[in-house]
Order: sequence, then C-alpha cells, then structure tokens
Amino acid sequence: MRYITPAMIASASVALAATDTPKQPNIVLFLVDDMGWQDTSVPFGPDTTAYNRTFHTPAMERLAASGMKFTQAYACSVSSPSRCSLFTGANAARHRVTNWTYARDESTDGVGPNDSIVPPEWNINGVQRVPGIPRSYVGPSFVDELRDAGYHTIHVGKLHLGSTRTPGEYPYNWGFDVNVAGGPNGGLATYLSEKNYGHDENGRRTSRFAIEGLEKYWGSGTFVTEALTQEALKELDRARDYGTPWFLYMSHYAVHVPIDRDMRFYQSYVDRGYSPKEAAYASLVEGMDKSLGDILDWLDKTGEADNTIVIFMSDNGGLGAHGGWRDGAQHTQNAPLRSGKCSLLEGGIREPMIVRWPGRTEPGSVQPRYVMIEDFYPSIMEMAGLSADSIRPDGKRIDGISFVPLIDGTSDPSAHRPLYWNFPNHWGVEGPGINFNTAIRLDDHKLIYNYVTGEKELYDVGHDITESHNLADERKDLTDELSRRLGTYLRSVDAQRPTLRSTGKPLPWPDER
Amino acid sequence: MRYITPAMIASASVALAATDTPKQPNIVLFLVDDMGWQDTSVPFGPDTTAYNRTFHTPAMERLAASGMKFTQAYACSVSSPSRCSLFTGANAARHRVTNWTYARDESTDGVGPNDSIVPPEWNINGVQRVPGIPRSYVGPSFVDELRDAGYHTIHVGKLHLGSTRTPGEYPYNWGFDVNVAGGPNGGLATYLSEKNYGHDENGRRTSRFAIEGLEKYWGSGTFVTEALTQEALKELDRARDYGTPWFLYMSHYAVHVPIDRDMRFYQSYVDRGYSPKEAAYASLVEGMDKSLGDILDWLDKTGEADNTIVIFMSDNGGLGAHGGWRDGAQHTQNAPLRSGKCSLLEGGIREPMIVRWPGRTEPGSVQPRYVMIEDFYPSIMEMAGLSADSIRPDGKRIDGISFVPLIDGTSDPSAHRPLYWNFPNHWGVEGPGINFNTAIRLDDHKLIYNYVTGEKELYDVGHDITESHNLADERKDLTDELSRRLGTYLRSVDAQRPTLRSTGKPLPWPDER
Repeated sequence: MRYITPAMIASASVALAATDTPKQPNIVLFLVDDMGWQDTSVPFGPDTTAYNRTFHTPAMERLAASGMKFTQAYACSVSSPSRCSLFTGANAARHRVTNWTYARDESTDGVGPNDSIVPPEWNINGVQRVPGIPRSYVGPSFVDELRDAGYHTIHVGKLHLGSTRTPGEYPYNWGFDVNVAGGPNGGLATYLSEKNYGHDENGRRTSRFAIEGLEKYWGSGTFVTEALTQEALKELDRARDYGTPWFLYMSHYAVHVPIDRDMRFYQSYVDRGYSPKEAAYASLVEGMDKSLGDILDWLDKTGEADNTIVIFMSDNGGLGAHGGWRDGAQHTQNAPLRSGKCSLLEGGIREPMIVRWPGRTEPGSVQPRYVMIEDFYPSIMEMAGLSADSIRPDGKRIDGISFVPLIDGTSDPSAHRPLYWNFPNHWGVEGPGINFNTAIRLDDHKLIYNYVTGEKELYDVGHDITESHNLADERKDLTDELSRRLGTYLRSVDAQRPTLRSTGKPLPWPDER
Repeated sequence: MRYITPAMIASASVALAATDTPKQPNIVLFLVDDMGWQDTSVPFGPDTTAYNRTFHTPAMERLAASGMKFTQAYACSVSSPSRCSLFTGANAARHRVTNWTYARDESTDGVGPNDSIVPPEWNINGVQRVPGIPRSYVGPSFVDELRDAGYHTIHVGKLHLGSTRTPGEYPYNWGFDVNVAGGPNGGLATYLSEKNYGHDENGRRTSRFAIEGLEKYWGSGTFVTEALTQEALKELDRARDYGTPWFLYMSHYAVHVPIDRDMRFYQSYVDRGYSPKEAAYASLVEGMDKSLGDILDWLDKTGEADNTIVIFMSDNGGLGAHGGWRDGAQHTQNAPLRSGKCSLLEGGIREPMIVRWPGRTEPGSVQPRYVMIEDFYPSIMEMAGLSADSIRPDGKRIDGISFVPLIDGTSDPSAHRPLYWNFPNHWGVEGPGINFNTAIRLDDHKLIYNYVTGEKELYDVGHDITESHNLADERKDLTDELSRRLGTYLRSVDAQRPTLRSTGKPLPWPDER
C-alpha cells in the first residue's frame, strides 16, 4: 500500500523504491456518452444482433476478450444523474440531481403535454464538494480519494457535475491534477475542428456547448475524439514519467449528438449501404473505439498493461426518443432492449460495461449479475486498495456496493439487492418509459411506476429482456411488494416527486396507489 | 464555520443562506519574488531611507496605512526553501529543499572557489504531496486544507514547489482549483509579451523559464505582471459569483531578474535621474505595486474588502550578489541591511510584510516582533477558522507558529523563540553570508555559522540592524549557547550539512567546534 502514513512521512526524504511496497494499479475509466447497449460489435445480449453487425468496435472486442463483460450494468437514464452518482457514490434519489444540469439556477425540465404537473425542486446546480450552493448535493469525490492516496489524476473530456458559476463546474475541484477540455457542459457544439469546436474565428463561443481547452487543434482537421485521445496519451506519458500510480478518466464527448461525421470511418459505412445519418453515427462509435484502442496500445507498448485496470462504461442508454441514429426507427435503436435514453425501460439504462484487471478478471469472461453506476465509487476504491465504507467518517453516504467480489467470484452482492431509479422530471420529449417515473429492480423483476398516471409496469427482465409482458396485474403480489419497497426506499432517502399544480399536493408514492 | 459536517451533509440539498453561519474570510496572499526589504516607499526600518525615496509603491502605502506592518518578517534566503516552508509549514532544515529546484534529479548547486566541499544529498525534487519521488519531502498543503474547508482556491503566477516531471510540479496537485501561469519554474524568461513570455513565433519555448498559459497576451504589449493581474481579477469575479469563500495566491514573477522595463513606469525614474537599469528595476517594483492596488480596488468596489484578509510578503532578500539593481553597488542593495539574496545576513532574509485583517489589525500599526515564513501555514489556518496543530493527525509536522496572537495582541509567540536557517549548499555566487552556512536567531541575537571555515558571527540584530559588530568573541557565552541550540535543533530534525571531499566526512555541526 502506498497510503501516506506517519511512518512514511518520517522517512519521506528517503526515496521509496517501487519495490518497497506493493504497487497500486493504474486505473483507466473509459466513459462514453450516450452510448447504447447495442452500439458495438461486442454482443452484450444473448445473441449477436443486426446492430452488433452494424458497428465496428475492434478495441472493445479486444478488451472484452482479455477482460470481463458485464451484461447487466446499469446507469441512470440521463447523463447528470449518472455522473453525479459515479463521482459521489450516491443514488440519484438521494443526490436529487435527477435531470441534466447546465447553467446555475436554471432548470432544464421540459414542458409536458400539459403543464398540470410540476417537477420538484431538484438539484439543478448539480453536485458540489462544498456547502453553500443552493439546490446542490454536497458529496465526496472518489477522485479526491485517489489523489490523497498518491494517484496522479487526469481528466480528459466531459465532466458535467456542477452547473456553470458553481465551484464544482471544473474538474480541478473534484480532485483532478490535470484537466483537458472538461467543464460544466453536458454536450458539445460540434466534433469538428473546422468549426473550432464551437468558436468563431475570433475565438468567441458560438454555442453554450463549445468545448474549451483544445485551441491548438482548431482548424487542424482533428475530430474532437482524436484530439482528446492525443492529449490523453501525452498526459499518460507524463504520468508514467512521474512514477506514481495514475488514474485516467477518459470521458468522451462521443457519441452524444450532434451526429457529425468522423471522416476516418464514415465512408466504410456508406459503402455498406447505411444512410448518411446512420453512417455518421457508426463513425462516431468507431472513432470512440479507436481511442480505446490507442490507449490499449499505449499500455502494451509501455509495459503498463499488466498493472493497469481498464473499465469501460456508458452513462445512459442510446438514442431513441429524438429520432435516434437509425432512419425511420424511433425508440428501437437499442433492440432487443425497449426505448432509449431517459427511459426507465432497459434501453434507457442498460450499458455496455467491460472490466479488465490483469490477474483478476478471467479473459473473455461474462458477468451476468447486475451492477449500478454508483457501484463504481466503492469498486474503484477497492481496486486502489482503499476503504469504501457505506458511511464515511465525515458522514457522507455511499449507496454503491463494490463489484470486486463479482470479479473475483468470492460472493454475489447482487443477489436480492434492490436497485433504484427516480426521474420525477420531464425531459422535454415523450416516449416509452420516459418522464415522471421511478423504478426498482430486484433479482429478475423490475417495476416502473408513473407518478402522473399511476400506471405500474412489472417485467421479468431476467427472462423477458424486451420487456414485452407487463406482469403488473398477473403478479399483483409482487407488484405490491416492489411498490412497497420502492416507496419505502424513496422516503428513506428523502427523494422527490412531482406535484399536481391544481392542488399543490405531491403525487402519490408508488405504494400509495 | 463552514466545515463540512455530517449534519450539513444531511441537509446539503437545502440551500445554506450566508446568514446561517459566520462567514469565513476571503484571503489574498500576495507574494513577491526576490523583493528586498527596502524595495518600497514604505519604510520597514527605523528610518525613511534613500531607497524608500527611490521606489514608488502607493498601494503598499495604502495597505500599510490600513493594516499592520511587520518589521521583522523572515523567510529563507532563496526561493524554493521559502516556498516549500510556506506550503508545508516545515522549516527548511527539516524539508531539506535547501537550494532552488528546477529539473527532476538535477542539482542546481553551484561550484565554489574549489570543489573540496560537497553539498549534501538535498531534496532537489522539491516538496511533494505523495511519496515515491526520490529526493523529495512529502508534506501537507495549506491550500488543500482551505479547499477541503470549502474555499475556492486560485493560483496566479509562480509556484516553484516540485521539480519538472514530478507530481508536485503544477498547482492543481497542491489543492488549487484554478491555475494561471504556474508550474515548476522558479524564474521567468522575460516579462515581455513581445517575446511571447519566452516562446518563439511558433509557440516553442525559447527558455526553460518560459511562462506557460498566457498565450492570449502574446504580442499584446502587456507586461507579464499586468497580464497576471488581469487574469486574477477575472478569477476573483468568478469566485465571487460562486458565493463561497476564496483564497487567492497572487504569486508574482516580479521582481525577479531579468530586469526588463515596465514601460508604464520606466520613464518617470529616468526623469528622476536613475540609470536605465535602476529605472527598469524600479518600474518592475511599481508594476507589482500597481497589481496590488488593482486588487485592493477590486475589493473596495465589490464590497469584499471588509471580509477579506490581505497578506503581503516576499520570498527572500533583494538582489545583491549578482550585481544588484543599483549600478556600482554590489551587496548594498538592501541597506541598512547587509548583503542580499542567499545571504543569512539580514539583507538576504528579512522581508517586507503587511497584514490587513479588517476588524483585527489596527490601521497603520507596526508589529516589531519577528515571524518566519513557515508561520504562514498555521496563521492562515487560524484565519480561516481551522485547526493548526504542530503535529497533524497524519503525523505531518508543522514547525511554524501562528502569528495571529501578534495581530490580536493576546500573546507574544516570538518571545524567546528560536528561528533557524540552514543552507548547506553553494549558490553559485559568492558574497557576505552566502553559501555553506546555518543560522539561529533568538530574541535580539543572531548567530551565523559557516560549515567550511568554522567562522561564527554573532550580531545583536535588535540593536545593530546593519550587523556591523561581530560579538562572537566578546560574547563567547552566548556564542556557545546559540551554537549548542542550533546544533541540537539541526540534529533533531535530521538536517543536512556539507562534506569534505578529501575525507568523505561531514563538516562539524556548529557546536562541534
């Protein structure tokens, strides 16, 4: 262990040879934005699908072949809730950043078909490390903990934790030593250096989603995914030079809209008969995969691979409600999963996840047990040899549970463990499983409750991956049981729910009707 | 207090109005590089000198008139030791960064008149926050503590803590949320935007002391002191917008060599009859003072002045041995103090220091008790309402003692308190009190011991500010007593000393001959 202890301090002026202490592993967390469970040539489902055959992601294949594929990895249905859970270890029902954030004190809630329903006063200013910011959740940062334990911490790409004009808007506040292009924005103006990533010729922002910090690539013909990768590799060279363990948060803006064409890969999809939009989206995905491949190559070339854990994840389900990437196929982009981003149906929350931990994950293995985005905090702590108590010394609560026992096969923390989602908001777009709802998964079953209509959907997700058979009536006992557990949980973490404008009263909890 | 407590976490999603809790003060630490005790129109000595009449520093006058002037504030004799003590709270004899640092694993020791004396294996890689870096001292960072307590932390200018290619080389590693132009370099290539602050027209560094991060000012005609100030004010606007307490480390590259001309102020000194070099140096000083004035103006304009502590300090004595700024007057630049930078005579270590703490410092007051650079750590902690134990929970040692009681007049921590210096190195230049020596100050007296020659100088600094009367023989009792205390201290902190090359044996401690 390389914790800083009094004994080490006492001898701190003496050089500590790397051989004196077991080496902490380096960690790469490769997070993709808005990537669906099917947006890859790696099959995460029981069958290889038409989508798997569409996409070309050789680096993901390589990672899966040398690591462990998680087939039921969950996140929240939109970006900010997932990222806030990732960084603080808290479930979204607790941290209350339930919709996406951008500007201080501005809500991004959409307007529904009518305005009779009012979303709660959710934490529109995101998560923060310090108190004093209205409508924000104060949580710890796993990156701070890594840094305190001696890791050199590198942020590349999208952060999206604190709103603009709040202390949490930039990565340094979260414990990063290095920031490349990260800030409060949850999307990007454009992938194109020809458009200066969202700036005019005088350097002025042409979009609230302009990407900062990549000025040297302006006009160079470098797709933003590639620019971020080149910067990441430079930072890895520097980190290696330091000789301390390092953490790379490679948080791509890809494959979020706009669906720009990555011309390095675009034509091959056109040649295979895909429409311009479809080919563009597939090129975004392949460009992202190329970045992963470049990092894997760097690890091999430098000899760091054996001491580096690589974790691949996406932050929410793939496109769907906005029309998706596939022409003429709204809400079916993630098939066999139903619906997409912002839905509590599987298409909105199930993610492609792979972990490669040399000496720990069996190459080419498959992990069918479920995990949740807030599990990354305690898992990464455990990987780094740090403690990960559910209640921290400062009173902060970690809702996640380490998935390291699943990797080692020592126990099954997923058995009989409930997972929870809460989206008491309106996203601005309608679709299956989208808006004003909450859900619980317990073993094979998932219950989704709509605050507004009172509708309950119960699916045996373990056997009905397409969520085609609503068992709510048929399994009334289970529906009631899950409603009770969901309601109890939401109240226990002081979760929020929408209000009926006409009465000013909150809508019922799932176990209240 | 705005500590993060469990109770606050529990209610963290509720906005905390500023009125709910006593407000932590904002803090400006305005540190000037290589500024001598006389390089100002504010008299820090008993008399107004010719030098005081040379320089024009109206902002310092304004600060002194509204705050407390410390007339015996000490630092180390060169930059890195002072800065490492400032950040970690450790005396230089303990942290062993006894000479200036730059590149990893490279010593900056000069070669003396002969090479018979070998400097010790001092910590050429500076201070670090993490173990594992050879020849470095692992210490805490007061900035990290401020940040953990909710401060937004801003670094502007020179850092100079960890050598290049070590984790401590950039400010983010030390707990800063923002970095403007700070890194491993201890000097600057040039103040001139016409020279792109040390880069050629293609952006390549033309000097190891090129200043990074000010690209937008290249070619703009903006002196670097002004560019840093403009950036600092922007960051203050942002910090104020956040609404949290903030800490600004305004760490100027001025007034370090090269003695470039700040043309905003240069001509007035030429007109007064000063030589080009003298006028240039005075313009550097006035440009620095203008920066202080701009910050004071910002505080007044925004209404933050009443809740902001301003601390002014320099990191070592003014020029001298390199010829100094004054034509034909080597080693007398700091008169009435003797010698200058790198000397353990007063000219190398006594600094212009002012503290303005609204409601605590009496306007226009003078504090004659001595303080030392490592005292800033616990003092700033106390100002922020944080604890400052001499042994921290993690075993780290804080040698400094808070000077807040001197401000409040509640006690006199300086009485009978020994201060220590250790410079077992060769700076590369010779001069009075320079190289291979160590010193102790106790009440009015100071003993300087030369490791090589064995010479001891004893001065009654309290009554002989010019250090003209060596009392070593006359006061043999005191010489012995101070030699004993100095030797005992150096051994107690595992301090280093030079070695005689011919024998391979260390030179004697001060109480060994």
